[in-house]
Amino acid sequence: MARIAVNITGGDHAPHEIVKGAMSFAEQHPLDRLILVGSDEALDDINEDEHGIPGDGYDVVISNGNIGYDADPATAYRKSKDNPVRTCATLVRDGEADAMVDFGNTATTLIAGTLTIGRIKGVHRPALPVVIPQLRYDGDTLVTGEAILLDVGANSECTPQMLAHFALMGTIYAQIRGVDAPKIGLLTNGTEDSKGTPLIKEVDAILREGTFGYIGKVEGRDLFSGEVDVVITDGHNGNIVLKTIEGLATMMGGFVLGSFFTSKEAEAAYEVMRGPLRPLKTSLDPTAIGGVPLLGTDGVCVVGHGS
Amino acid sequence: MARIAVNITGGDHAPHEIVKGAMSFAEQHPLDRLILVGSDEALDDINEDEHGIPGDGYDVVISNGNIGYDADPATAYRKSKDNPVRTCATLVRDGEADAMVDFGNTATTLIAGTLTIGRIKGVHRPALPVVIPQLRYDGDTLVTGEAILLDVGANSECTPQMLAHFALMGTIYAQIRGVDAPKIGLLTNGTEDSKGTPLIKEVDAILREGTFGYIGKVEGRDLFSGEVDVVITDGHNGNIVLKTIEGLATMMGGFVLGSFFTSKEAEAAYEVMRGPLRPLKTSLDPTAIGGVPLLGTDGVCVVGHGS
Repeated sequence: MARIAVNITGGDHAPHEIVKGAMSFAEQHPLDRLILVGSDEALDDINEDEHGIPGDGYDVVISNGNIGYDADPATAYRKSKDNPVRTCATLVRDGEADAMVDFGNTATTLIAGTLTIGRIKGVHRPALPVVIPQLRYDGDTLVTGEAILLDVGANSECTPQMLAHFALMGTIYAQIRGVDAPKIGLLTNGTEDSKGTPLIKEVDAILREGTFGYIGKVEGRDLFSGEVDVVITDGHNGNIVLKTIEGLATMMGGFVLGSFFTSKEAEAAYEVMRGPLRPLKTSLDPTAIGGVPLLGTDGVCVVGHGS
Repeated sequence: MARIAVNITGGDHAPHEIVKGAMSFAEQHPLDRLILVGSDEALDDINEDEHGIPGDGYDVVISNGNIGYDADPATAYRKSKDNPVRTCATLVRDGEADAMVDFGNTATTLIAGTLTIGRIKGVHRPALPVVIPQLRYDGDTLVTGEAILLDVGANSECTPQMLAHFALMGTIYAQIRGVDAPKIGLLTNGTEDSKGTPLIKEVDAILREGTFGYIGKVEGRDLFSGEVDVVITDGHNGNIVLKTIEGLATMMGGFVLGSFFTSKEAEAAYEVMRGPLRPLKTSLDPTAIGGVPLLGTDGVCVVGHGS
C-alpha cells in the first residue's frame, strides 16, 4: 500500500474535481495515506461545498504560497518557498509520501520533480512519456496495442546522451507496462541512412552500440503501426506530435459523432454503432488517461492532465 | 493553357498509372502540351499494354539514364547527366514546359527543383507544403477548412531566415488557394514566452517584425482548430507531424470502417452511414491529394505522392 500526496490547487477544475477524483481513487485502491495538499482558500472552497470532503482517512497539509512569475519557470520555482507543488515534492523527497500527483502547470510539476525530488543517479534529465493507444477490429474482436512516446514536454532541447537515456527509461517503463522485450525506435523523417538531423544521426549511432531492443529510426506513422513499443524524441517534437494527435483525434471523433446527426436514419444507426465505436472515445480522448509518471526522478511524480 | 512535363518512371505504380493519370488530367484540363518523359523501357512497357498510350496530343521525350547511389542524394544527382527527373526539370528551366510533375523519390524531385530549375531570387531554400484538411458537421452540413503545413521534408535543418522565408512562401501559397489574408503560426510546444527552442524564439522575433499575418506561436492541435491558415516548421518536424497524421488518420479510419463489420446490425447501419462518413476517406486519406508544389523554385515543380 502506498502514501500519495495530491496537490488540490492546480488544473482546470481544481479543487473540487481533484478532491473527488482522489477520494474515488482511495476507495478503489486502499492507501496507507492520502495527503491533500492545498491552500486555506482551496480547502475552504471544498468545505463550503454541500458535500464537504467526502469520507475520511486522509490528511490535509496547508500550503499557502504561490509561485511568482519569472521568464524562467525554474527561477520562479526556486524563489518560492511555500507552495502546494513544492510541498508535495518535499513530502516525497523526505519519505513521507511515496508519490505525488499534480494537475497544474506541467512545467512546474517537472521542475518540482527534478529540483525537489531529484533525479535518479546517472539520469541527466527526467522525461515525460505518453501512452499512444492503437486499436482496430479483427472481425468483431477489438485488438488494442500501445506505443510509448517520450519525451513529450520535459526537455525542449536534448543532447545525444539525454535521448539515449530516454531510450533506457522508456525500455523500463514499457517493461513495467508488461512488454517483455520492448522494441525502441528513434523518431525522425525516414529510415534511410541519409535521413535525420545531425543530432538524430549521433543518437542513432549511440543506440546501435547498446544491447537493448533498439530497432533503428522510425517515422511518425510507426506510432500506430505496432512495430515499435517505445518511440524516442526530444520534448519539443514530442509535444508537437502529442498535440497533433490530440487535435486530429478530437476532430475525427467529432466528425464521426456528427455524422450520426445528419438524418433520422443516421440517428437510428447511432444506437447500433455507439457500442462498437466506443473504444474510439475511451482510448483516444486526450482526457481518457488522467496522468503519466515523470521518468527518471528518485520518487514517483505523476503529471496529471489539466483538463 | 499550360505545358506540363511528367516523369512516368517514378512512383509505386509507374509507368501505367502515371500515364493514365496524366492523360485523364489532360482530358479534363486542355493543355498546350503534355510531355511524357521516360526511359525506353518504361515506354515499351506502356506500349505493350493492351491499351497502349490512350489518346494523342502528347509528346514523348526519351531519357534513359539513372541516378546512381551516393550517401548524399545531391551528389548522386549532380553526377547523373541524363535521367527523367533531370530532363523534366531541364524542360522547365529552358522554358519548354511550364511545370513538371514527379511521383518518384521526393528528395530527388526537390534536388531537381532546386539545382536544375533553380530558386526564385531571394529564396534560400525551396520548401514542401502539405494541405491538412479540416472537417466537421454543423447539423447535416459538412463544414470544411484547411491549414497549410510547411516544410514537410525539403529541409531537415533550417536557419531562422529559412523559416521566415517559409512564412512568406506559405502566405503566397495560401493566397493562391483563396485565403485573402492568411494567418501564419509558428509550430512549437506552447504559446507562452518561455516555450520553444532558441531557434523558434529567434524566428518568432523575426516574424513579429513583419507586416504580414503572423499571429505567433501555435501548437500541434492548431493544425485542426481553424485558427491559423499556415503553420511553419522545419522539414524534420514537419515530416514527422505529416506522417503522424497519416498514421493516425489511417488507423482511426480503419477502426471506424471495421466497427461496421462487427455484427449484422452494424453492416446494415453502414448502408446509412457510408454517405455521411465518406468525407473522412476522401479528405483524410493520404492518397487523396496527388501532389503538392515545391514552393520557392523559379518554375513549377509538383511533387507527387508515391502511392
